[in-house]
Amino acid sequence: MSPFTGSAARTSHWRHLRVALDDGVATVTLARPEKLNALTFGAYADLRDLLAELARERAVRALVLAGEGRGFCSGGDVDEIIGATLAMDTAQLLDFNRMTGQVVRAVRECPFPVVAAVHGVAAGAGAVLALAADFRVADPRARFAFLFTRVGLSGGDMGAAYLLPRVVGLGHATRLLMLGEPVHAPEAERIGLISELTGEGRADEAAHALARRLADGPALAHAQTKALLTAELDMPLAAAVELDAATQALLMNGEDYAEFHAAFTEQRPPRWRGR
Amino acid sequence: MSPFTGSAARTSHWRHLRVALDDGVATVTLARPEKLNALTFGAYADLRDLLAELARERAVRALVLAGEGRGFCSGGDVDEIIGATLAMDTAQLLDFNRMTGQVVRAVRECPFPVVAAVHGVAAGAGAVLALAADFRVADPRARFAFLFTRVGLSGGDMGAAYLLPRVVGLGHATRLLMLGEPVHAPEAERIGLISELTGEGRADEAAHALARRLADGPALAHAQTKALLTAELDMPLAAAVELDAATQALLMNGEDYAEFHAAFTEQRPPRWRGR
Amino acid sequence: MSPFTGSAARTSHWRHLRVALDDGVATVTLARPEKLNALTFGAYADLRDLLAELARERAVRALVLAGEGRGFCSGGDVDEIIGATLAMDTAQLLDFNRMTGQVVRAVRECPFPVVAAVHGVAAGAGAVLALAADFRVADPRARFAFLFTRVGLSGGDMGAAYLLPRVVGLGHATRLLMLGEPVHAPEAERIGLISELTGEGRADEAAHALARRLADGPALAHAQTKALLTAELDMPLAAAVELDAATQALLMNGEDYAEFHAAFTEQRPPRWRGR
Repeated sequence: MSPFTGSAARTSHWRHLRVALDDGVATVTLARPEKLNALTFGAYADLRDLLAELARERAVRALVLAGEGRGFCSGGDVDEIIGATLAMDTAQLLDFNRMTGQVVRAVRECPFPVVAAVHGVAAGAGAVLALAADFRVADPRARFAFLFTRVGLSGGDMGAAYLLPRVVGLGHATRLLMLGEPVHAPEAERIGLISELTGEGRADEAAHALARRLADGPALAHAQTKALLTAELDMPLAAAVELDAATQALLMNGEDYAEFHAAFTEQRPPRWRGR
Repeated sequence: MSPFTGSAARTSHWRHLRVALDDGVATVTLARPEKLNALTFGAYADLRDLLAELARERAVRALVLAGEGRGFCSGGDVDEIIGATLAMDTAQLLDFNRMTGQVVRAVRECPFPVVAAVHGVAAGAGAVLALAADFRVADPRARFAFLFTRVGLSGGDMGAAYLLPRVVGLGHATRLLMLGEPVHAPEAERIGLISELTGEGRADEAAHALARRLADGPALAHAQTKALLTAELDMPLAAAVELDAATQALLMNGEDYAEFHAAFTEQRPPRWRGR
Repeated sequence: MSPFTGSAARTSHWRHLRVALDDGVATVTLARPEKLNALTFGAYADLRDLLAELARERAVRALVLAGEGRGFCSGGDVDEIIGATLAMDTAQLLDFNRMTGQVVRAVRECPFPVVAAVHGVAAGAGAVLALAADFRVADPRARFAFLFTRVGLSGGDMGAAYLLPRVVGLGHATRLLMLGEPVHAPEAERIGLISELTGEGRADEAAHALARRLADGPALAHAQTKALLTAELDMPLAAAVELDAATQALLMNGEDYAEFHAAFTEQRPPRWRGR
């Protein structure tokens, strides 16, 4: 338990997600397989709150985001979200759309790497969740579709118009967000949207192997690498090298750096502590 | 006609471009085929003024930019531009170079997608015009050449040093802008410079099909997607998700979003209104 | 000699690098082949000071950065750097990490293109030095490894978390910096990390040929292209086109632009002066 725990209670049960924790690796599963894991208001809210809770508890060193059943996530539920938003006033519409953006910010800003395990469809908000992850581990039948314009909305949803050009370049991003067509695994790999292409049906397994490796390695170094990648997208070069210098000076005072040197000198593998 | 029309007259005849309008799709053709559509002062000025006029009139939902004859555009005319600028004073040189930059800003900022139909050569300013478009639909014999250093100028002309790294990455962009060598269609596709590769001689046809599809679809959603892609290149993540939230809240009050839901419920295709 | 030379003396001997100058092309060789050119405090300091000196003297129009022996550079020396930093206080750690960042800034900001000639391993700080160069000319056995997390440090070292996403996209950059795995030449070329792939053992030769071509061409145009590429990564579009306009107006008053026009008119090759 982190010393920076206040009065806020731990959530005893996540009703809209399945959450498991195993020695520093959290697995968050979208588990409405009968609906291709379509997101509901509750699922967005749980993702937002779960990531905040995990970030302050500091018990997690890597997280896998997976989908149960035939696909990863088909996006916002047409009935439960599109239908409901049609009856909302402007303040509620803003609240909803800010919440979905907070989920993406939480994925980018949480202090541990997030590995999306993508099989089958990752559509709409599901595609953006995968996009916001640090790694997209996908099998050959995975496909991504940024469907927003298909429902009459902007392709720039939940930060997609910010993130996608920075992952695949402005040309591909314009095409994907404007047209909403599916990008199948081979193209996704070619344009840099997939981090690791696995054998068929092996995305979950490979994502867990990667998360385990990240959690068992120098986890504070991984967390800082993620934080710098996120922050330096928004910083000029001069500021970025200053942030790098301060970060490395900090980590050079850390246990893992000394451990690396000791292990190297003793010609043995390092025992990482993640601090 | 937009209610936001003031005293400024509509241009009755574009002398330096061929302009056609067909049910929401504008086609702008560089039409000096005997000079490979080399740009003149008049052509730049017309592009700047035309895009401003189309933006305020709101009669256009997609635009095709094409070149007549053997190629798309060979860039600034050596005689009419290079020769003339050698006789200019500093204020005039600034005025000229600001005008060309305004054309690129107008392409990026106009409230409709721009589809460049590229066949044959897109060189110098012609390459940057294509680069500024939202889509580059090109045939297998298309080639791009950012020739500026070849005439003793900076490769960063008309925003190329801003745009190209964001489309193909800094490494490729440095090579292309510094050396000015031609990039043929296969390489252009591989590095993300082409949005759609067509059959030989089919770039114009495919560009029009795409523009038609964009114009007949949820055109306000397309326009906002473009606006967010353009704006969020220059915004931090937190601001980008806030802009996305406000934009989606706005479009969720729009006709096309309700129409999507009605069509989905009634199991029929949506009839997009573009608003 | 530049008129902007003050009291600072020219360095008569670079003890930690081999430096040669041949008609506008500088060659800087990391020359500790018995240690795979591992960097020492002295080598970092010499790179920082050399680039500053070359920038103010204005005798160099292109620079090759090469490594002697089996590889380009294995990064910071485990004994001489990691061991030594473990004994440093916080102020010294900051000084060291700021120095390495200054080297990267100097590579990005010096007024001439830098060509990294990469054969064999470019690891850790060696990978970032190559990344900061304008061109990476590499042979088929080259490999890049951003090893920082492997020693318990942040992958964002010396600006790598700023530069790498802008060269290969955020997805690949996250994978490379977080995991520290080697990227071999074929993958490096595919993701845009290599500018020119040479025949086996030809990286040095090809890098020199490129530097010679850059130095003998319109070198001021090349220098400004580099400056704009570097600056416009950190600028919004509107400011970038304004900077482009001012830069082109400046170069349109230059000798090389007039020379291009004269040569074109006289149907002869231009004689570039680099001004």
